[in-house]
Amino acid sequence: MAHKLLLLTQENDKYRKLLTDYNLPDLIILGDDPSSICEANIWFAEPQLAAPLLNLGSELQWLQSTFAGVDKITGSRQRRDYSLTNIKGIFGPLMSEYLFGYLLAHQREHAKYKQQQLQQHWAPGSYRTLQGQQLLLLGTGSIAQHIAQTAKHFGMKVTGLSKTGTVKPYFDHVDTIEHLAEHLPNVDAVASILPNTLDTENILNKSMLALLPAESVLFNLGRGNVLDLDALASQLQIQPLQHAVLDVFNQEPLPSEHAIWQCPNAIITPHIAAPSFPEQVVEVFVENFHLWRQQQPLNHQVDFIKGY
Amino acid sequence: MAHKLLLLTQENDKYRKLLTDYNLPDLIILGDDPSSICEANIWFAEPQLAAPLLNLGSELQWLQSTFAGVDKITGSRQRRDYSLTNIKGIFGPLMSEYLFGYLLAHQREHAKYKQQQLQQHWAPGSYRTLQGQQLLLLGTGSIAQHIAQTAKHFGMKVTGLSKTGTVKPYFDHVDTIEHLAEHLPNVDAVASILPNTLDTENILNKSMLALLPAESVLFNLGRGNVLDLDALASQLQIQPLQHAVLDVFNQEPLPSEHAIWQCPNAIITPHIAAPSFPEQVVEVFVENFHLWRQQQPLNHQVDFIKGY
Repeated sequence: MAHKLLLLTQENDKYRKLLTDYNLPDLIILGDDPSSICEANIWFAEPQLAAPLLNLGSELQWLQSTFAGVDKITGSRQRRDYSLTNIKGIFGPLMSEYLFGYLLAHQREHAKYKQQQLQQHWAPGSYRTLQGQQLLLLGTGSIAQHIAQTAKHFGMKVTGLSKTGTVKPYFDHVDTIEHLAEHLPNVDAVASILPNTLDTENILNKSMLALLPAESVLFNLGRGNVLDLDALASQLQIQPLQHAVLDVFNQEPLPSEHAIWQCPNAIITPHIAAPSFPEQVVEVFVENFHLWRQQQPLNHQVDFIKGY
Repeated sequence: MAHKLLLLTQENDKYRKLLTDYNLPDLIILGDDPSSICEANIWFAEPQLAAPLLNLGSELQWLQSTFAGVDKITGSRQRRDYSLTNIKGIFGPLMSEYLFGYLLAHQREHAKYKQQQLQQHWAPGSYRTLQGQQLLLLGTGSIAQHIAQTAKHFGMKVTGLSKTGTVKPYFDHVDTIEHLAEHLPNVDAVASILPNTLDTENILNKSMLALLPAESVLFNLGRGNVLDLDALASQLQIQPLQHAVLDVFNQEPLPSEHAIWQCPNAIITPHIAAPSFPEQVVEVFVENFHLWRQQQPLNHQVDFIKGY
């Protein structure tokens, strides 16, 4: 039986070429015309593009998300009568690059030395090494584990918080997220890699943010809804030595009038910490397609209830 | 027999306190008056401070350098009738922080996103991950090995060049430094961690620099004499996509009139990649002092002929 594949991405041409090169058996890659939506039994899709079309997919059996985050299609009112898989395992190294790039730039004072260079001014200063610093990670999944491993390599102490507090590799210590308030006062850096679920909504609220030490750095790399952005913007103004590095927001693009854009102690990036590289996404799909044909369980299956 | 210790550093008060706290047996820590120079049999010294006083040290038996680089006191005309030890093992993590901080800031385009933030402009772009990139390290010692290990963690391919080409941990490949010209055209990044010796003088000269790919990044973290700085400044002007990150120079402070200060594609830092943290330096000394008392071979003994 031939499977019919619908592409719903912002890079359909690129994906069509990559997938065609694999020459997958029994797979017809449909064109981009609307009729394909009703015809396809497999969707290869960015969640926010799939969301409004889901109910039109009368043949839909399996949707391979090209993103890790699938909250756009796992709402309680959305259909759940198909297999949903996402991308895992490829984002850890990219997130580590992002987090340690910005953390090292901060701790090793790139901005200060840049200013000195502009003035041809030679003035070595003391600084803090990452060695011995405390990193708190909200989330202990595959991305968090890669970050924890990188942090251990740089000599940091790493605590992870998750719903269950189950021990995971590379962490010195894992606790449950309900103990967040006990851990925040001890961090040098804290990073959220949490997915968007009801459980994680607004957990970095005003009172939690107030527990952060005066010279700490906060990263939000997971989903915007974890963080009260307005509270953070207010706090950064009165705590000039605190820093935040933010890549994800409730509303993207972040509205140009939001005060956080202007905070000198905030870094705003446009959701680029861990983009999906098409070559890697296609690898995940291809492996899953072979499993699908053999009626084996798919990799990276999403639990609609949990939302990840 | 009581040993008499001379401190010759820019932080004598700090070191005196740290060493006193160790309460080392049979050790008298001398005061900072000139007579101590003639009296001390052990010197704990920054090489450039020790150099002009070496010949006055009539009792000198062992000099513990507080730096890794000891070229200021290993010249062919300087005395060699004492044991010289330096600091090794503590600089690798600091050098990794410096190198990967700047490499990630470059690859992940911190400057571009900073500009976009200043304009409240949300514009995700594509970028290159470190994964699969080629790093060439000049030097394969303990610092280079730490950098190589970090690079492997980030998924890079790492080649090391040394005098002998002897296989070392964490490198995918080690070759002899005489094959430098064959390796330079293939690098994404190249970093020199070479000590200052006659062998390494000016090996990154104009013709070698010309072999670097158009979008490569050059780091000099070891010693200034490895690199023709004038040739590099000229080349960076005609190759705007090439970048250099320089922490060490033949003349330090780097003279304010040097053209390299003004290159937009050069980053100049004032020899801060891997400073000696007093606590760690004292640990090395204390371990060596116990060996010295037991007449055991010292750690990190410098070979005067090799110069490291």
